[in-house]
Formats: sequence, structure tokens, C-alpha cells
Amino acid sequence: MKIYDIEGFPNPVRVRIALAEKGATDKVEFVPVDVMGGEHRTEAFKAKNPDAVVPCLELADGTYISQCNAITEYIDGHFEGPLLTGNTPKERAQISMMNLRAENGLLNAVAAYFHYATPGLGPDLETYQCAEWGNKQKEVAGQTMAYLDSVLADNDFLAGSEFSVADITAFAGLAFADFAKVEIPDSFANLNAWRARVAARPSIAG
Amino acid sequence: MKIYDIEGFPNPVRVRIALAEKGATDKVEFVPVDVMGGEHRTEAFKAKNPDAVVPCLELADGTYISQCNAITEYIDGHFEGPLLTGNTPKERAQISMMNLRAENGLLNAVAAYFHYATPGLGPDLETYQCAEWGNKQKEVAGQTMAYLDSVLADNDFLAGSEFSVADITAFAGLAFADFAKVEIPDSFANLNAWRARVAARPSIAG
Ligand SMILES: N[C@@H](CCC(=O)N[C@@H](CS)C(=O)NCC(=O)O)C(=O)O
Ligand SMILES: N[C@@H](CCC(=O)N[C@@H](CS)C(=O)NCC(=O)O)C(=O)O
Repeated sequence: MKIYDIEGFPNPVRVRIALAEKGATDKVEFVPVDVMGGEHRTEAFKAKNPDAVVPCLELADGTYISQCNAITEYIDGHFEGPLLTGNTPKERAQISMMNLRAENGLLNAVAAYFHYATPGLGPDLETYQCAEWGNKQKEVAGQTMAYLDSVLADNDFLAGSEFSVADITAFAGLAFADFAKVEIPDSFANLNAWRARVAARPSIAG
Repeated sequence: MKIYDIEGFPNPVRVRIALAEKGATDKVEFVPVDVMGGEHRTEAFKAKNPDAVVPCLELADGTYISQCNAITEYIDGHFEGPLLTGNTPKERAQISMMNLRAENGLLNAVAAYFHYATPGLGPDLETYQCAEWGNKQKEVAGQTMAYLDSVLADNDFLAGSEFSVADITAFAGLAFADFAKVEIPDSFANLNAWRARVAARPSIAG
């Protein structure tokens, strides 16, 4: 099994944390993609992943899987270890819902701000910009932080008492927020305490 | 089990098709939400679904699940009938990936065009508009149609030989495209043939 990615970027981070939670990091071969050099937009890479983004998983039989949610679904089902996407239909639905809220409302909103309303990855890669939309998405990210903070007033983790893929997505979203200089207010005490707890997990602290 | 929604709108349609595929439509109570009157933005509704959109599922124990992907996950696991989200980790990942491509690249792209670049649901509801972004998303929708057409050159359905939630999402996306007057070119022969096949399923044709 191979993962095409680049270390440290927010979406690749999601898959790497998921693998570490499953104790499966050393079962995967990481193939570096030169994102800053535009390798992910070449025809050769788009044959693997037409979305032209990283990460992308290649199975032993040559099947390619992209989109972090789909990759994590595979990792969670394929490897032993604690379930990240839930067990019962209710757990699975709650985790999926919270994961989508964290993804659309936080991680993707910060990404939209970064790519469309700031210099982002630089002029060679940011061939489309739309500051109005990007700035609106920055507002959305702030609203989502407030929402996640309220959820964490009652729960240890975003989808309840157990760590899940929703926590991974939100954690990566906050890391991206720091990188893109989107403020995470100190007043979100539950969110900041949760973030410190997640950062201390062996899958992240190492 | 209750579903808060409004008949005929693209996202509610996704859940209704999923229920029909599982033969479970009559196991659910549908509670109409006055979307055109703004009921989904009231505090009472946002207590059920903070995303302020339909559909929203209420379980017998009072748990609320929103986001079509999460609701479909629940329906698929809870009810008997053919699996819509796959069985093995590989099937699940492939379906999830294709579903996300159909959702982000087609259905949500058409929605962005409709809500941000056209009068959409009218001035009372469209309190934020951004024509530049909406028009860009219309282009994305066209590109995604071309991509889906190419996938359907080799497969009966979007994630392989079996009907799945990815087909439901794409089908709802094309219905939304018609409604929003986003062209679906005749030249996409595979896509149009697939659409006719899906439309003829008992879950849709009735
Ligand atoms: N929704 C995708 C997002 C992937 C994504 O945007 N990846 C970024 C790296 S964090 C990327 O490849 N960016 C390249 C670009 O913007 O050109 C997923 O879940 O994998
Ligand atoms: N991603 C959401 C989208 C739901 C959505 O946008 N629903 C529309 C109806 S198709 C809605 O409630 N619109 C209300 C509005 O735009 O104010 C899902 O999967 O459920």
C-alpha cells in the first residue's frame, strides 16, 4: 500500500494521524509528491487522482483512492486497532456528521481563505483567486470554531466520548488556521483544552 | 424515526431515494419544513440542526443527524436491503470517493451557482451572494459532468458494477442542474444513458 502525499500539509496530516492511531504507519510506503513544483497537476498524477490533490492512496491491486474521508474509511476498515469511524449505524452517522461539519466549516473554509484570499501557495499554483469568497469562508471558520467549542462543553471529543475521525479533521483544521493566520480565540476554552488533549495523543506527540 | 425535510428539494431527494432503495420509506415519518418561509433558520430548527438546512433525521431516542451522507450512512446500516455504501473496506472507500466527487463537484457546485450567482430562493433567503464564485462553480459542475461521463464509459454505475449512494448524489445533482438551468450537454452520452437507467429504477420511477 502506498500513499502519495507531502509531509506537513493539512490533508495529508489527516491520513497520517489516522494511520498512527491504527498503529499502521510502518505498513504504508509514502511517496513524496512535489506539490510546490506542481507535480500533482501533471497528467501522470491526475491519472492516479483526477482531483489533482494529495493525499492519494494506492492499494496493492493498483486501485487508487483519493479524498481523506474515503482513504480514512479504507484505513479504518483494513487495519486493526480502535475504530475511527464508529461501529453501530448511530455512531457511524454521528461521527460522519461531525466530521463533515469540521471539514466543510473549518478545514475547507480555512483552505478557501488561504487559497483564494491570500497569496496562498504562490502565483504559480494559485491560478484562481476570489478574495470575496475567501474572506467569507474565514468568517465561516470562526463560526465553526464557536460551534465546535459549544459541542466540546458537553463531550470529551467531537462525536461523543471517543476519539474519532471528526477530531482528526478538526485538529488538522486548527493547524491550518494557525498556518493561515486565522485567529483561534483564547475565549474558546473547550476547543483549546480539547486541542491540547488531542495534541498529546501518541499518534500526534509521537 | 422522523425526517424533517421538504419534498422535491435536491438534498432531501437524496435521502428519499436511499429510503426507497432500502424499501423503508413507510418506516419513516416525514415532517415538512417551510424552507421558503425560513423555518429552517429559526432557533427551534437550529436546535435540531445547527447547519440550518434540510434534511434532518431524528432517531427514536431523540438524536438528530444532519448531512445527507451521515443520514444515508444511518439508513444503510439500520435497514435491510441492498447496501448503498458498500461492504468491504475497498468498496466503502471507492463509493465514498465517488460520492464526494459527485457531491462537491456537481451537486454542491450547482447549488453554489444557484444560491450565489442567480436569484436562487429569492431575496429573503439569499442574504449572501457572490456571483464570481457562483459562476466559477458552474464551470466546475460542467467539468465534473465530463469526468463522470468518462467514468461511466467503463462502469454501469459510478462506483463500479453496483448502484450506490454515489449514483444517488450524482442523480440529484443533475436534477438540480436542470432546475438551475445548468446545461447537461447531449454529448455526454454515457452520463445521459446512466441517468435514464437510474431514473427507471423503482426507487425513483415509483
Ligand atoms: N478534499 C480533499 C482535499 C485535498 C487537498 O486540498 N489537498 C491539498 C494539500 S493539503 C492539495 O493537494 N493542494 C494542492 C493545490 O492546492 O494545488 C481531501 O480530502 O483529500
Ligand atoms: N450538505 C447538506 C446540504 C443541505 C442543503 O443545502 N439543503 C438545502 C435544500 S436542498 C437547504 O436546506 N437550503 C436552505 C437554504 O439554502 O437556506 C446535506 O448534505 O444535507
